[in-house]
Amino acid sequence: MTPRHQPSCQVLNVRDNLMMIDCGEGAQLAVRRMKLKLMRLNHIFISHLHGDHCFGLPGLVSTMALLNRTNSLTIHTFKDGAELFGQMLDYFCRERPFEVRFNIIDTHKRIIHEDDAMTVSTFPLVHRVPAVGFVFREKPKLRHIIGEEIQRLNIPHYAMNSLRQGEDWIAPDGTVIPNEQLTTPADPAISYAYCSDTKFSKRVIKYVEGVDWLYHEATYEESLRLKAHKRYHSTALEAATVARDAGVKQLIIGHFSKRYLDEIPLLEEALSVFPNTRLANEGQIIDLNQLEF
Amino acid sequence: MTPRHQPSCQVLNVRDNLMMIDCGEGAQLAVRRMKLKLMRLNHIFISHLHGDHCFGLPGLVSTMALLNRTNSLTIHTFKDGAELFGQMLDYFCRERPFEVRFNIIDTHKRIIHEDDAMTVSTFPLVHRVPAVGFVFREKPKLRHIIGEEIQRLNIPHYAMNSLRQGEDWIAPDGTVIPNEQLTTPADPAISYAYCSDTKFSKRVIKYVEGVDWLYHEATYEESLRLKAHKRYHSTALEAATVARDAGVKQLIIGHFSKRYLDEIPLLEEALSVFPNTRLANEGQIIDLNQLEF
Repeated sequence: MTPRHQPSCQVLNVRDNLMMIDCGEGAQLAVRRMKLKLMRLNHIFISHLHGDHCFGLPGLVSTMALLNRTNSLTIHTFKDGAELFGQMLDYFCRERPFEVRFNIIDTHKRIIHEDDAMTVSTFPLVHRVPAVGFVFREKPKLRHIIGEEIQRLNIPHYAMNSLRQGEDWIAPDGTVIPNEQLTTPADPAISYAYCSDTKFSKRVIKYVEGVDWLYHEATYEESLRLKAHKRYHSTALEAATVARDAGVKQLIIGHFSKRYLDEIPLLEEALSVFPNTRLANEGQIIDLNQLEF
Repeated sequence: MTPRHQPSCQVLNVRDNLMMIDCGEGAQLAVRRMKLKLMRLNHIFISHLHGDHCFGLPGLVSTMALLNRTNSLTIHTFKDGAELFGQMLDYFCRERPFEVRFNIIDTHKRIIHEDDAMTVSTFPLVHRVPAVGFVFREKPKLRHIIGEEIQRLNIPHYAMNSLRQGEDWIAPDGTVIPNEQLTTPADPAISYAYCSDTKFSKRVIKYVEGVDWLYHEATYEESLRLKAHKRYHSTALEAATVARDAGVKQLIIGHFSKRYLDEIPLLEEALSVFPNTRLANEGQIIDLNQLEF
């Protein structure tokens, strides 16, 4: 934590379900300042057990308890984290009116969460302690019904679901109406990959290949590449290299060293390799549907 | 923690030694924003084990570790706190270059810390969990030497310490020079009492009797006295009653419920009973030598 930057915490909003990625100290305050609905936050994913990525957990869960939450909360973390934070929560939030489940993760590539809308999978990062990145993938979405055509052809309501899934309509008289006449294409399913903290690694490129959005840490400038490697962090240029070689559409860089009072040089280094780069910043909201490319 | 107020944390500066009282989430950020020297912070006193009074500990100690601190840090807390935070620090700050000592306290009235400048003692509060208040008492200070008199009478340097302590000077010819001729009175030794969180209790009045400064929680207005009692908190009027009946010189009220967007009504209630009252606020610096009365 530095006077300039908050510790790591991001919140993904997928169809009004919130998922938190890392939970540094002060996360609850940031979430409340941004007026995010804690009641809709049901999953927290912790990338690794360094304080700046998880010390906000006890406070966040305590605040949830004060809000009379009843739906369960799942914290995805390594075994040690489940034990330590489990103890903390059992002591400080004994009387919480909801269940906290720990989903124990490890450093393998695997799907750790799946629901109607998406999957979340882990892949190994390269850091001083066990660390994972996450890929959030929306499942294919449904096609949009063209209301006037449905009315004109008098197609019954029960058929809508199969139409949305791309099936043709077979009228009672056997006529086949092709789906393309009745629907417009579904919105694209978005994918988002999160890589923090990690040393630059070619293996990471493979794991995030083809995602729409990549968040990658960029702690240092290229001139401090040696320091970056020694501390198991990346430079902005390396983050951009991952983005370029993985063929992602947009890159967000963050987790800047406190030595930088101005991150523009980091941005410029990244832009020289990968033009669709932007800086992460406290309180920033990004619409992941707005892919500019 | 509310969007309006930070969780509890105060820092006392006694002759450039810093002592922290409670350490809510975000304490390290507040301390650094106020440019307090963490290297000079050697004691942390935790009043009770509710998250809003101690969740900042792991982050603060982690930051101290990054600053290459070497002097030991003493955390005064109940046994459960020592165990839980001891585990957290052993996991997350394994490689810290300084010792963290836990001084186990209980709810008895006793001196828990003493150094050249002061004593710190505990006394029981009335809360849902074991809780203590603290009284910080400066030891009597030394008198001020009157330089011209010392020169005029040619009093040797080795005598200064006993003069500062109030002794008369006996010249080689046996003449006694009274101390009052050689020194001016010492600055007053200041005392500060901290009461949070607690239900109103007459016993507390006895424990803080005659202190110069009293910090007392004032979570609710008088109209919510029943709620205050039920939740083991105090009203502003009760805080002022403690101040008046204990004969303190100045009262600071704080720990306001998040329901109050404006604390002036709380201040007004307190002022009606005890005129020397002021509101605590984030980032506020109070010179305890400036007693206005």
